Amino acid sequence: MAKLPISSFTVPRLKDLPKDVRARIKLVQEKTGFVPNVFLALARRPDEFRAFFAYYDALITRESGLSKAEKEMIVVATSAVNQCTYCVVAHGALLRIFSGNPLLGDQVAINHRSADLSPRERAMLDAAMKLAREPQRFGEADVLALLEHGFTREDVWDIGAITAFFALSNRMAHLCAMRPNDEFYAIGRRARTRRG
Amino acid sequence: MAKLPISSFTVPRLKDLPKDVRARIKLVQEKTGFVPNVFLALARRPDEFRAFFAYYDALITRESGLSKAEKEMIVVATSAVNQCTYCVVAHGALLRIFSGNPLLGDQVAINHRSADLSPRERAMLDAAMKLAREPQRFGEADVLALLEHGFTREDVWDIGAITAFFALSNRMAHLCAMRPNDEFYAIGRRARTRRG
Amino acid sequence: MAKLPISSFTVPRLKDLPKDVRARIKLVQEKTGFVPNVFLALARRPDEFRAFFAYYDALITRESGLSKAEKEMIVVATSAVNQCTYCVVAHGALLRIFSGNPLLGDQVAINHRSADLSPRERAMLDAAMKLAREPQRFGEADVLALLEHGFTREDVWDIGAITAFFALSNRMAHLCAMRPNDEFYAIGRRARTRRG
Amino acid sequence: MAKLPISSFTVPRLKDLPKDVRARIKLVQEKTGFVPNVFLALARRPDEFRAFFAYYDALITRESGLSKAEKEMIVVATSAVNQCTYCVVAHGALLRIFSGNPLLGDQVAINHRSADLSPRERAMLDAAMKLAREPQRFGEADVLALLEHGFTREDVWDIGAITAFFALSNRMAHLCAMRPNDEFYAIGRRARTRRG
Amino acid sequence: MAKLPISSFTVPRLKDLPKDVRARIKLVQEKTGFVPNVFLALARRPDEFRAFFAYYDALITRESGLSKAEKEMIVVATSAVNQCTYCVVAHGALLRIFSGNPLLGDQVAINHRSADLSPRERAMLDAAMKLAREPQRFGEADVLALLEHGFTREDVWDIGAITAFFALSNRMAHLCAMRPNDEFYAIGRRARTRRG
Amino acid sequence: MAKLPISSFTVPRLKDLPKDVRARIKLVQEKTGFVPNVFLALARRPDEFRAFFAYYDALITRESGLSKAEKEMIVVATSAVNQCTYCVVAHGALLRIFSGNPLLGDQVAINHRSADLSPRERAMLDAAMKLAREPQRFGEADVLALLEHGFTREDVWDIGAITAFFALSNRMAHLCAMRPNDEFYAIGRRARTRRG
Repeated sequence: MAKLPISSFTVPRLKDLPKDVRARIKLVQEKTGFVPNVFLALARRPDEFRAFFAYYDALITRESGLSKAEKEMIVVATSAVNQCTYCVVAHGALLRIFSGNPLLGDQVAINHRSADLSPRERAMLDAAMKLAREPQRFGEADVLALLEHGFTREDVWDIGAITAFFALSNRMAHLCAMRPNDEFYAIGRRARTRRG
Repeated sequence: MAKLPISSFTVPRLKDLPKDVRARIKLVQEKTGFVPNVFLALARRPDEFRAFFAYYDALITRESGLSKAEKEMIVVATSAVNQCTYCVVAHGALLRIFSGNPLLGDQVAINHRSADLSPRERAMLDAAMKLAREPQRFGEADVLALLEHGFTREDVWDIGAITAFFALSNRMAHLCAMRPNDEFYAIGRRARTRRG
Repeated sequence: MAKLPISSFTVPRLKDLPKDVRARIKLVQEKTGFVPNVFLALARRPDEFRAFFAYYDALITRESGLSKAEKEMIVVATSAVNQCTYCVVAHGALLRIFSGNPLLGDQVAINHRSADLSPRERAMLDAAMKLAREPQRFGEADVLALLEHGFTREDVWDIGAITAFFALSNRMAHLCAMRPNDEFYAIGRRARTRRG
Repeated sequence: MAKLPISSFTVPRLKDLPKDVRARIKLVQEKTGFVPNVFLALARRPDEFRAFFAYYDALITRESGLSKAEKEMIVVATSAVNQCTYCVVAHGALLRIFSGNPLLGDQVAINHRSADLSPRERAMLDAAMKLAREPQRFGEADVLALLEHGFTREDVWDIGAITAFFALSNRMAHLCAMRPNDEFYAIGRRARTRRG
Repeated sequence: MAKLPISSFTVPRLKDLPKDVRARIKLVQEKTGFVPNVFLALARRPDEFRAFFAYYDALITRESGLSKAEKEMIVVATSAVNQCTYCVVAHGALLRIFSGNPLLGDQVAINHRSADLSPRERAMLDAAMKLAREPQRFGEADVLALLEHGFTREDVWDIGAITAFFALSNRMAHLCAMRPNDEFYAIGRRARTRRG
Repeated sequence: MAKLPISSFTVPRLKDLPKDVRARIKLVQEKTGFVPNVFLALARRPDEFRAFFAYYDALITRESGLSKAEKEMIVVATSAVNQCTYCVVAHGALLRIFSGNPLLGDQVAINHRSADLSPRERAMLDAAMKLAREPQRFGEADVLALLEHGFTREDVWDIGAITAFFALSNRMAHLCAMRPNDEFYAIGRRARTRRG
């Protein structure tokens, strides 16, 4: 099979992009070693690109009560609900890196109920999955269940907001048939100490 | 019954907010006559607030190939899938205003298949509903169906991106049990000429 | 968009109808100020018409342990499950009138879980929704939950029978693409004292 | 296991019933050889009883373009969707009798797609199943599919109205845990000539 | 309607089958009085045939902590989930025989919740139905619920393994449109003493 | 997190197993370099073990019209439907090996619709997914769609039977909370030439 392209919509050339968009892309390239396709696929609409990554930074890059690994668990589990290949593959890699556990990306993607998780992590994903799948049933009882596992109300907001942001992100990826970079599949497959 | 509050999370006082956030809120208050609760409920996290409304502006406020009424149809129909009271009530009002049709907000919210829509509008909502409900099944065949109704690929991106943004928005509203302002229910209930 | 007709099946002329059917229609016209389309759409089969409205009267018109507003809540919530535009619009109007609350029709139609309801009303709608959606799971445990909220067994029968009747009614409306009268949308939109 | 009762609600004594209700029950007893439990379970509310059986007569007893066997197929198939033991067992017996085929009741109840049906019968049940399960998706395309199989629009109304009536009937049976008479299970199990 | 064939795939002649396969078929014919179609439909692949019936014997023919009637209840209830006409009809007959209850086959097939079952039998079927429908949600809590009803862990394995085997069996039957022998429908329809 | 055990049921010691079961286990250990946990988890019931692997050999080990890679695609895709961690992880490894494509295991597990597949492979998985999810809707039309892509009827039987076998296998894995060996996750992650 010939590989599918990065996106089913036009992808702009880097040199045609506004300076700030180009700068953001260069930054991630330096840090990661390659340009994740989401940056290229979304760059065709600079204002949406800026809002998307500003939102991403506010929720994911920002330090908060959730560890980096916990945030990536939420992303992987809820993106698996929507069968979003881009988000599961790219964030599965990040989950392996931040957890130091090379098995966790696949485990959480396939079935979070049987993954090697603590009761607190399991409760976090149960709540996120409910908001992802049946948001109309999410309510104060779900918030209370999280508080009982030691999460603060700010943590609950983070859990919910990350889930909500990837409900958007998954749909953008499906809209343009966004293809994950081949590099992601292999990242973090060797055991390390947890640092998330 | 006592009314439920605006949000189940803390709502900041206006005077404690960053200047730009406060300015945005004042602007909408002047335009609308009241402050829609979504501004108050999200203001507790200024960076998320800024990203949210920057995204909103890029998709909804910006002029594009879709009319204002078409955009609101997408918002109402897909928010009804998620039973999001805030978004259905607030954007139902906007749909009545922009379409000049006092019946359309309720019709689209209850069942877009039986609403007074053109075949083009129906096709637009069929695609949006698919991306809202089963994004994993959305694909090039759905894009082609839209092109056949005269939409451009840029329009398709708009239809998909608005749907994606409200997948986020609906979940934020459910996360904090966001309550629509009472004012929205009555807006646009009298017939007018379509101006969307 | 040209408006869709009252029904996708033939609608008889009033003068061609049996006397009792015509009398019933005149009565509702005098009381309501217009003839709700359900009367015209069903009149083509006089025996079914008679049975339908005899059933309606036995459950809805008859005084019982449930208030008028409670009955309309059941109708609106369960008809929203079936996305029945006729029943949601027509009975949303009645719910606004009988509850004296101009917001309640829309709230119950969109998501009864976030509507301004008492715990008793919420329990009533939870039971009705279960019987509407998954009748095969309804059982004695659901009856007991209602008794605990102060309903009698006769009230439980009413809740169940109203739900059952509108399972029929919603399907008749979908069968003939029954269109709600435009008048219903605007009724009861101003606040009043509750009288249900 | 001790057998479960006829109904989880009170069942009136025959002698306490209004004359016309009692007469109707006697009539069916003479014809059938026993009193089907639905008559006893519903008799506690005479007005609802009268409306229920008037509706039943208008749809099922009345001669129409559908054969008796076709009507019972619709009842059995759609009642199986709702896992309604009373209706599947009682009308499975009637289907065996009217079709003269001792296998058809079980076949249609388990999976109408693999039952020994003509294409016309299969199309009829496909439409009925759609109206039973997802009434909000039923529309003119479904009507046209039936017309192509030789049904008239009056037949379509019958197919839809019978489906709608048993959506009610199934829910009444679940509401009161209505138990089918033991007699029904064995009726019509020997091959006969079709007479439906 | 002309009857459908035994299978939509080729069915081998008995004389062309390997000796052991033929012997197995003769054995069942002597015991049952006819050859159940599943033997003929699967014989076209002798190795699969041998594995299938070796598995069947290990789970169903073997003596274990579950009675013969209990095993057939599991088969009938879970096969009804998959609307498998062959398995429901053939094992409904066996359930009638082993339970001595001519009503139980149909009751369990239509809705196990309203069947004449003990709490232990009901718990057994609740667990089996969960593993049949949503195996990804089955877990230690379900095992514990069974232990509380007096089942041993070996019984739990039997319940689960029988459910798993018929998940296979139902799909093989649908793959080749396997038709139940007419004889099954009438077997065990007269009351007897329970001997399962 | 401490790792979960191989199985929630007792796992026998190798030396306590019947000779043939032990021999089979040694064989796979020599070939693979470790004992896949499915062999240990199922060995507690030797007759079921023998039937399971005889069935596996008849469908998977046996040469047939389907390539080794095609068979593993079916296993991975349908096991992902049931969120079976054991089967997705173990057979994802085999799919990477047999296809020579280190990305294909994850792609097929997450969303076969966006995987790098030929139209023939896509059609094969569409049919398998239908039989896995909604076996009651599988029929001759699905068989014909496969024949049009160049599959023979024997291939169709293979596709269906492999799907059916893993419907069993997935449920056995969920029954005993079967844990995949850590080794599987890393196997086949480097690109090779396709040899399946």
